[in-house]
Amino acid sequence: MSSYEAYKERLLKMKPNIYVGGEKIGRNDPRVEAGMNMIRVSYDAETDPQFKDKAIVKSSLTGKNISLYTHVPQNTEDLLKRQKLTRDLCGLCGGCFQRCMANDTISGISIATKEMDDDLGTEYHQRFFNYLKYYQKNNLCGNAGQTDIKGDRSKRPHEQVDPDLYLRVVEKRKDGIVVCGSKAHNTIAPYADEIIVVPTRAMTKDDADWAVSFAIPSDAEGISLIARASQPRARTHIKAPFNERGVMDSLTVFDNVFVPWERVFMCGEWQYAGRLALLFANYHRFSYCGCKPAMTDVFIGATAMVAEYNGVGNAPHIKDDLAKLMVTAELVYAAGIAAAVTGKKSSSGTFEPNFMYSNAGRYHAGVNIFHEYDILSATAGGWPATMPYEEDFYNKDIKGFLDKYSMRKPGISAEDQHRLFRFISDFSCSAWSGVWQYAGVHGGGSPIMEMIGIRSNYDLKAKKDLVKHLAGIKD
Amino acid sequence: MSSYEAYKERLLKMKPNIYVGGEKIGRNDPRVEAGMNMIRVSYDAETDPQFKDKAIVKSSLTGKNISLYTHVPQNTEDLLKRQKLTRDLCGLCGGCFQRCMANDTISGISIATKEMDDDLGTEYHQRFFNYLKYYQKNNLCGNAGQTDIKGDRSKRPHEQVDPDLYLRVVEKRKDGIVVCGSKAHNTIAPYADEIIVVPTRAMTKDDADWAVSFAIPSDAEGISLIARASQPRARTHIKAPFNERGVMDSLTVFDNVFVPWERVFMCGEWQYAGRLALLFANYHRFSYCGCKPAMTDVFIGATAMVAEYNGVGNAPHIKDDLAKLMVTAELVYAAGIAAAVTGKKSSSGTFEPNFMYSNAGRYHAGVNIFHEYDILSATAGGWPATMPYEEDFYNKDIKGFLDKYSMRKPGISAEDQHRLFRFISDFSCSAWSGVWQYAGVHGGGSPIMEMIGIRSNYDLKAKKDLVKHLAGIKD
Amino acid sequence: MSSYEAYKERLLKMKPNIYVGGEKIGRNDPRVEAGMNMIRVSYDAETDPQFKDKAIVKSSLTGKNISLYTHVPQNTEDLLKRQKLTRDLCGLCGGCFQRCMANDTISGISIATKEMDDDLGTEYHQRFFNYLKYYQKNNLCGNAGQTDIKGDRSKRPHEQVDPDLYLRVVEKRKDGIVVCGSKAHNTIAPYADEIIVVPTRAMTKDDADWAVSFAIPSDAEGISLIARASQPRARTHIKAPFNERGVMDSLTVFDNVFVPWERVFMCGEWQYAGRLALLFANYHRFSYCGCKPAMTDVFIGATAMVAEYNGVGNAPHIKDDLAKLMVTAELVYAAGIAAAVTGKKSSSGTFEPNFMYSNAGRYHAGVNIFHEYDILSATAGGWPATMPYEEDFYNKDIKGFLDKYSMRKPGISAEDQHRLFRFISDFSCSAWSGVWQYAGVHGGGSPIMEMIGIRSNYDLKAKKDLVKHLAGIKD
Amino acid sequence: MSSYEAYKERLLKMKPNIYVGGEKIGRNDPRVEAGMNMIRVSYDAETDPQFKDKAIVKSSLTGKNISLYTHVPQNTEDLLKRQKLTRDLCGLCGGCFQRCMANDTISGISIATKEMDDDLGTEYHQRFFNYLKYYQKNNLCGNAGQTDIKGDRSKRPHEQVDPDLYLRVVEKRKDGIVVCGSKAHNTIAPYADEIIVVPTRAMTKDDADWAVSFAIPSDAEGISLIARASQPRARTHIKAPFNERGVMDSLTVFDNVFVPWERVFMCGEWQYAGRLALLFANYHRFSYCGCKPAMTDVFIGATAMVAEYNGVGNAPHIKDDLAKLMVTAELVYAAGIAAAVTGKKSSSGTFEPNFMYSNAGRYHAGVNIFHEYDILSATAGGWPATMPYEEDFYNKDIKGFLDKYSMRKPGISAEDQHRLFRFISDFSCSAWSGVWQYAGVHGGGSPIMEMIGIRSNYDLKAKKDLVKHLAGIKD
Repeated sequence: MSSYEAYKERLLKMKPNIYVGGEKIGRNDPRVEAGMNMIRVSYDAETDPQFKDKAIVKSSLTGKNISLYTHVPQNTEDLLKRQKLTRDLCGLCGGCFQRCMANDTISGISIATKEMDDDLGTEYHQRFFNYLKYYQKNNLCGNAGQTDIKGDRSKRPHEQVDPDLYLRVVEKRKDGIVVCGSKAHNTIAPYADEIIVVPTRAMTKDDADWAVSFAIPSDAEGISLIARASQPRARTHIKAPFNERGVMDSLTVFDNVFVPWERVFMCGEWQYAGRLALLFANYHRFSYCGCKPAMTDVFIGATAMVAEYNGVGNAPHIKDDLAKLMVTAELVYAAGIAAAVTGKKSSSGTFEPNFMYSNAGRYHAGVNIFHEYDILSATAGGWPATMPYEEDFYNKDIKGFLDKYSMRKPGISAEDQHRLFRFISDFSCSAWSGVWQYAGVHGGGSPIMEMIGIRSNYDLKAKKDLVKHLAGIKD
Repeated sequence: MSSYEAYKERLLKMKPNIYVGGEKIGRNDPRVEAGMNMIRVSYDAETDPQFKDKAIVKSSLTGKNISLYTHVPQNTEDLLKRQKLTRDLCGLCGGCFQRCMANDTISGISIATKEMDDDLGTEYHQRFFNYLKYYQKNNLCGNAGQTDIKGDRSKRPHEQVDPDLYLRVVEKRKDGIVVCGSKAHNTIAPYADEIIVVPTRAMTKDDADWAVSFAIPSDAEGISLIARASQPRARTHIKAPFNERGVMDSLTVFDNVFVPWERVFMCGEWQYAGRLALLFANYHRFSYCGCKPAMTDVFIGATAMVAEYNGVGNAPHIKDDLAKLMVTAELVYAAGIAAAVTGKKSSSGTFEPNFMYSNAGRYHAGVNIFHEYDILSATAGGWPATMPYEEDFYNKDIKGFLDKYSMRKPGISAEDQHRLFRFISDFSCSAWSGVWQYAGVHGGGSPIMEMIGIRSNYDLKAKKDLVKHLAGIKD
Repeated sequence: MSSYEAYKERLLKMKPNIYVGGEKIGRNDPRVEAGMNMIRVSYDAETDPQFKDKAIVKSSLTGKNISLYTHVPQNTEDLLKRQKLTRDLCGLCGGCFQRCMANDTISGISIATKEMDDDLGTEYHQRFFNYLKYYQKNNLCGNAGQTDIKGDRSKRPHEQVDPDLYLRVVEKRKDGIVVCGSKAHNTIAPYADEIIVVPTRAMTKDDADWAVSFAIPSDAEGISLIARASQPRARTHIKAPFNERGVMDSLTVFDNVFVPWERVFMCGEWQYAGRLALLFANYHRFSYCGCKPAMTDVFIGATAMVAEYNGVGNAPHIKDDLAKLMVTAELVYAAGIAAAVTGKKSSSGTFEPNFMYSNAGRYHAGVNIFHEYDILSATAGGWPATMPYEEDFYNKDIKGFLDKYSMRKPGISAEDQHRLFRFISDFSCSAWSGVWQYAGVHGGGSPIMEMIGIRSNYDLKAKKDLVKHLAGIKD
Repeated sequence: MSSYEAYKERLLKMKPNIYVGGEKIGRNDPRVEAGMNMIRVSYDAETDPQFKDKAIVKSSLTGKNISLYTHVPQNTEDLLKRQKLTRDLCGLCGGCFQRCMANDTISGISIATKEMDDDLGTEYHQRFFNYLKYYQKNNLCGNAGQTDIKGDRSKRPHEQVDPDLYLRVVEKRKDGIVVCGSKAHNTIAPYADEIIVVPTRAMTKDDADWAVSFAIPSDAEGISLIARASQPRARTHIKAPFNERGVMDSLTVFDNVFVPWERVFMCGEWQYAGRLALLFANYHRFSYCGCKPAMTDVFIGATAMVAEYNGVGNAPHIKDDLAKLMVTAELVYAAGIAAAVTGKKSSSGTFEPNFMYSNAGRYHAGVNIFHEYDILSATAGGWPATMPYEEDFYNKDIKGFLDKYSMRKPGISAEDQHRLFRFISDFSCSAWSGVWQYAGVHGGGSPIMEMIGIRSNYDLKAKKDLVKHLAGIKD
């Protein structure tokens, strides 16, 4: 049984707790299946000759062969491998391949648990490693539950009118804890094995009840996954790989959910909430340095092809736009390389990307995403917005007209014209593209968050000292 | 009977010739009706106390009261009135109110026919005025059929492998002409009374058969409207004006369509094809100086409101973004004012906006549209992309959760939060927004077209003379 | 005697109170003369057939013919005339013609004095009109003294550690007032007849001593003009109009300066300090809608010419850049037109430009200025930065080399190549260009000030109401 | 004798062949000395404990300790070391430290000579290594002579009306070659030991005479250095390190200059002209990934300090601007790291940076340079443009005024205010800044050159294949 089949089998055994469009559905729903198809890409890579040398690595815990996406990185090489494979697989998906987030979460937890144990005498680190061995052995697919609802954004967790607006511990029992609240924007939760929760921000002493991290099966008692399904438009005649996969996000509600202690990795250590939140952010922004260039790769390919199909492949302004897309892709990717090369070993042994570069890369991707759609749109012309429905191309009354008037550059068949423009429409002029525009801004932290991260961590004093030296100013 | 009712009655009498999603439909289809609802806004303005002083004007042909949108402007005041009303009505629609385009077409034809008659001794001008009287009297709703398929964009009409890739005259008969080809991106064609055709570009002598302009009822024999319907997501519980209206675009196919001479306004006068194309473009870009600020008004309002609802209404970076949106809106609007104020009277009596300013305004709107979505998206956060379906908010199992976790700033009810975010999702994270992003780039001519228009018509010599003077260079 | 000669005669009679580079100089210094040469342009326009219909207008006070630049505008036409003439004359100067600022000041004072009188029962308005008659009759050249030193920008005037960091009234006497403090960035002060002082910002009751406005001859007792002179590089062989003119700014120090009451236009009316500051800003930002397009005109001409001289006049990316410059020029100019057309009559009879548009125009100019230098620099190549000195082109040992290696496009003489590149170097790669880059950002208020002005005065409620309507939100 | 002293001694022995401002000068002129002061920084680094571990490396030719800046890189580590040291030293200089260019030239020649020898059977490589041993042993300071005058940019070398508009071989003799022409923008030529010439572009067979590379002492017979000197404003009282250094560029004229064969590294091998030109460009653009971040470091420090001195250090828009500067610096630096990490070993053993990343980094720096000045200018306010002369601050009549009115934030002394604003004025509002703005755009190849380089070398096919896969298009 392949790792994908095993994953699917596990999923299909789960209790239905997904709500979509007013109904409760099971994991055999086609919308869930579209998400599984996306996850499949990273499972299949493990046996794909093109990818398996990156997709399979040796576990730092057990020395056994495991999936890269269950591994916590030990060195620069591990990070570079991850960045490259992520770009390749996201390219194949034409967007987010959805597997990075749990990897980013476990990497972060592996560090923070060690630091808590060292500083506070807690016992989280070994507990987490036990969990991680189980996770690696079973090659699980995890979701990252980070973003709280946050209520009034100008208030801290304990100041909210409803304490559940941030997820919190409502009871500590002998055998575990009980949590209440919700996590939003939980991509893949409906087709993940596990939900892995980390805090969303730095906290104060008064927020201790909200400083919590744990892992839980996504169909555990008390969990509701209120989900939204996104998928490129379904195809009837013009089938294409891009349209076979989808994504679901959920508002994951925890209604008095019990979590046994062996799955709790932070509980009240508010001093480390910010650290763990930023560790996840750091890894996740590093992941963006792999996936966003893949997204840009698709923009590059689509822009170049549609220019050719329109007969304007050599128009100078389009060639300039292509070069700008290339620079965007490679600067973001370069930031990831720099983050990996200048990263550092944490006390846990896990290797941490250089926060400055992972943030600079994610920031640059985030401020450019809408402009990438702009370029593709400007090059494609209006057809992706107004082209008739697929079915019309197969209605015998008008098929002749549509084939005739699809023609642009001679030598490109009507079907290929149809295929390319329909892809561009689905990719960039659809409910799907709306979701990925928002995701391009906010996923992994919006640009304003990276600006704050960067300026808070930058060695500004060294730069001011340079100026003092040059200007002859003595302190 | 109100002018809207009369319009609807006319439409419902038409022969079915609309193709959508593989079917042929009549004009009583709900998707067509959603389009009519949009058109209704400008008809209703004629009797609305807030708008009627602008919406009703005196015809320059008959002296009778007519709709502004059937009037050809005679002076600056007419243009300013049009710009203001367009902004107001588009604001009410939350986007394109779809009524400007025929107005722009008839304004252009009124000028070009006079110039052809004066220069070439043709008799188009009076013929067009006869048609226009009919159009004004019946308060028709016209569509503009300008954009040809264009095939290989590096080739002229007569060089295409298929001569029909630009619409052309295939036969001249005693009583009229027969045309073949198609026009693309024909917004409102399925719910317009008439299709008014103008050339798409400048032409050479060899392209004479393609230099053609005429008006024709949209259900005339031989016309097929292969259409795509767009509409904000349908609502079940949370009804809202924004979701009641829609738009259809069509690929309008002319399969040996007969046009009687009294409806033909150009036929072979290739020298004037470019002039008429640019006249339409000028008026249409001027229209954009009214409608795009309305679109930006919605971005301003939505960004301000969502910031407040999120509790961050005073965040400095959001206030800066709001100011940038305001500047964009007002610069585009100012360009329209300047075009109206510095316009000129043509030989036909029709008043022409200053091409330079209408183009500068449209250009600025076009290069900013994606950035406006970016700002709204950045301010709103991820919820418009991931919020559960409307029905889930009314599923009794989870309604409590959704109301609870919708809460942000205290004092804003769960329903208002729901309404605002669902509006933002429909407006900016949907198939609808995809269409309007493309339309924002290409409608009325994409920014590259305005750049070409501007630099081709600018008095560059005067600027070089300035530099020669300053530098002491004698010619 | 021409108005310029009269001006010069007045100036040369003044007491020396200018400090430059460690020396006290008289107004016969060549650096002052370079400034006078700039002022001359607006005086000479009064008799120039090309300009006199705009440069000479009827005084609203006396009905006599006066210089436009001593007139307070009465209607849209007056504003449009001023905008056009300013663009033309600044074009001739290759930059700021320096005459607008006093005009902007008197326009603002004419309104604020009336409003104060009406509301507070003061008697400033007639007093100011008496002064203005004198000013018009003698065709004076005034300076605007607005910007205070401001000390710690996070503190109000009365909170500063040194009360003189904003200019203030230190004594009220029977015959007048005594003021102390300074005004910074006082362009043309060393060659102005008069310094006309207005407040720099809104004030509170505690700041009443700092709410002061008056006019004073620029060599009055107690005034020191500590000045910086800027001028394009002096030429020896390649004389050119651009290099004959210059500008001086001063830090104008008021050391217990007595001002007679008949020249005092505000003294303690802190409620109107902000109004007068913004009135000046409004007129001055409107002026920028005339002068900045002229500056862009020079960028357009220079970029086009250097592209031609380099043999790349048809390079598509350069044509695109030219179009972008054209759009910038015309959008800023359009904002000025819109400000004039939608302005309003104040209670004093003076016509006020629409604040929203004057600010939008100035903002757009301000955020684009550096980019304009970027475009010219990118097109010109490195030669403006590295070309040898003018004298080397006339050193017989190497003249041959320099003429030979100046050659670019055949048909353009070595001298013209030399002239153009030296102009571009002086215009855009020099101490002079440094000053105008800073002035382009800050003159008339930097972009951040316009953002604040716009968002504080915009009808944001109307935009939010639109969204509420569309989304179905009831208040 | 230190390596700087040895360098200076060599220079002072040279024959005078520098022309400045109409005079011929020797290398003891203060303007030349200011340039030597800049070069000194890299010589002094060799013995500075902070830098010497990077500044001194083992020669790949001799195994001896040599200066990093005479070394040809052998691996990633060598490149990273160079990038870091360049950033550090340029930071100390407040701009270009001027030592990279010869290093970039020799690195390129070391590769191209090997490839020519391998492919064409020439004997350049060993010859060059002999020269390089001499260069390393004597720790020479070289200049890169690459940019030709180029005449009509739309023509190739052999098509120019004057064949000397590109440097060319006019005679091949038994003992060497004779060259004619010139090289422009030759930074440091007046104070370099050697001029090292490489071709400026790809060439065709007809351009063979123009395909030439060699090294020659900068005072060789027939060479004239027609130079322009740039230096921050000289200081009298407020001495500061920034103002002690300068730069000279020259138009270097070769009037029948003889070059012995042992110093000739290409002579007619037109097929390799483009390769060598791009190799130099690659190394030089890589160097920019070190120096431009240093320039941005100064912008960061200066912007932060002036905001503090103005009392607005916490203004949110300024903190955002600082973050943007930080991202710019680190993305460019990251591109350099990526270029070093993903570079490759050439057949000569020299390690080549990855062209894609060095170009992306240089491009990003180039398109941001003017914006960096914009940010500093916007934060500093107008004072750098209008502050009085240094001498005025020491004129007893007005010193009191200037000290008094320099005060901004309490606690910062008048002298420190003076020092900071004068530095900012010299750095960003001066003839010096004009030169560095142009250099920031063009040095190492302007952004348009990098766009061409990137799009010509990018694997576009792979991106189109991705889209074909996603869209289901078969070739």
